[in-house]
Amino acid sequence: MEIRSEHACFGGTMGFYSHASEATRTEMRFAVFMPPEAAREPVPALYFLAGLTCTEETFMMKAGAQRLAAELGLALVACDTSPRGLGLPGEDDDWDFGTGAGFYLDATAEPWARNYRMGTYVNEELPALIEKNFAVRAGARGIAGHSMGGHGALVSALRNPGLWQSVSALAPISNPVAVPWGEKAFGNYLGPDRKSWEAWDASLLMRAKPFKGPILVDQGTADQFLARELHPEALEQAAALSGQQLTLRRHEGYDHSYWFIQTVFPDHLKWHAERLR
Amino acid sequence: MEIRSEHACFGGTMGFYSHASEATRTEMRFAVFMPPEAAREPVPALYFLAGLTCTEETFMMKAGAQRLAAELGLALVACDTSPRGLGLPGEDDDWDFGTGAGFYLDATAEPWARNYRMGTYVNEELPALIEKNFAVRAGARGIAGHSMGGHGALVSALRNPGLWQSVSALAPISNPVAVPWGEKAFGNYLGPDRKSWEAWDASLLMRAKPFKGPILVDQGTADQFLARELHPEALEQAAALSGQQLTLRRHEGYDHSYWFIQTVFPDHLKWHAERLR
Repeated sequence: MEIRSEHACFGGTMGFYSHASEATRTEMRFAVFMPPEAAREPVPALYFLAGLTCTEETFMMKAGAQRLAAELGLALVACDTSPRGLGLPGEDDDWDFGTGAGFYLDATAEPWARNYRMGTYVNEELPALIEKNFAVRAGARGIAGHSMGGHGALVSALRNPGLWQSVSALAPISNPVAVPWGEKAFGNYLGPDRKSWEAWDASLLMRAKPFKGPILVDQGTADQFLARELHPEALEQAAALSGQQLTLRRHEGYDHSYWFIQTVFPDHLKWHAERLR
Repeated sequence: MEIRSEHACFGGTMGFYSHASEATRTEMRFAVFMPPEAAREPVPALYFLAGLTCTEETFMMKAGAQRLAAELGLALVACDTSPRGLGLPGEDDDWDFGTGAGFYLDATAEPWARNYRMGTYVNEELPALIEKNFAVRAGARGIAGHSMGGHGALVSALRNPGLWQSVSALAPISNPVAVPWGEKAFGNYLGPDRKSWEAWDASLLMRAKPFKGPILVDQGTADQFLARELHPEALEQAAALSGQQLTLRRHEGYDHSYWFIQTVFPDHLKWHAERLR
């Protein structure tokens, strides 16, 4: 693990790091905010998965989360949204596929299967790396995310019982098998067999087996991607079928931006802190 | 005035705008956060001047200020750091001069004198534009800034008695006539007569005549520019000579970044709110 930079912030440390990832077979970057309390004892950690085109810096710079995380004694962890710079054909052609658009799954189709393994990265390699190198408490892990990262957070929690103790999402891609972003990504990363896509769809996973604990989802009603890509009603239908405890809140007039994330994120920090502390 | 985008944020509105500036004879961009309280009555406004290389977006995206500004009922206004895209020779050669480095003064030397008039822009045109188009209370204006913008905030307040009711600075260039950034900028914008530079130097202005009211300045001790460019001790010496009320706080281990700004900015918001409300 290499330190790219570390900065004092709210009495704790905001750090940017890189390491050679086994899961993606490339260098990966990530960011960690450690609250002041971590100097005395290990703290719970909230992992945040960002949306299309973002990097490990985006959430840390734009969500304004550190102030309250410092008060609540929560570490924050953010990773990049895909491997980068592999030189694969088509990797950089579109903003919603390839670089910056790893969709937090393990690709099985060529040429992506060797490196686009963000599912394993987020659910195995990254938590192990964080728990080895930072004063965080193993077994006190929350996961949240926005848009593509909201999909990633929900799917990570639903696929890995016991790994994540709390989960929430902001404007998630809730039913990717049924929307253009998901069809493009899953079709390329997983191949044409749509049956194989179901293992990475939050609404279908939730129908089959609920997450053990409540889930918080926030959605703006003026979100420019709501009708075409996000489909939060699919989560409500799945929750009703499987008995999943789901709090889905709609916020009048809010869009898909980090201005929305800033506004609701204090509630997500408190949600995770309550469950992880 | 043209609306580039507006977003719901903390119950208020985060907006990005442009207009044809008379002061700089070019298009200028600015950003305004209006707190929810402004829907009921005009609110005080805090203007923020950013540092080298920044735009009107930087402070709004990185300082995490909206949450507390919404609670305190403060509007936030941020402008760009220079005119852009004029095609002047040397305009884009260096990161610390020309584009992104207007130093909030009125240039008198060629070829800058026609457009690089950020002093007039910030102290005349922008407040008039804001007070015409937004629900802010005229006569309740605060000004703050970081680095080059800290210089700009202090100089604006000291040069224009009565215009700004409160002022604060973060890691300001405190004595620009005596440091490399200032010598380069003032030498080019104002010409070789160093006597003419004194009218834009916060420490020299403060020696001659204090601001009517207390000034808050925060500085990190691990700031990579502290010894070479910032010289806060010049403000302390000037304050002692002229009787200026000055609270200058040094923060152990903090650097020059927005992670430092995020950390101390809540105190600045409260400082201005107390004086403007």
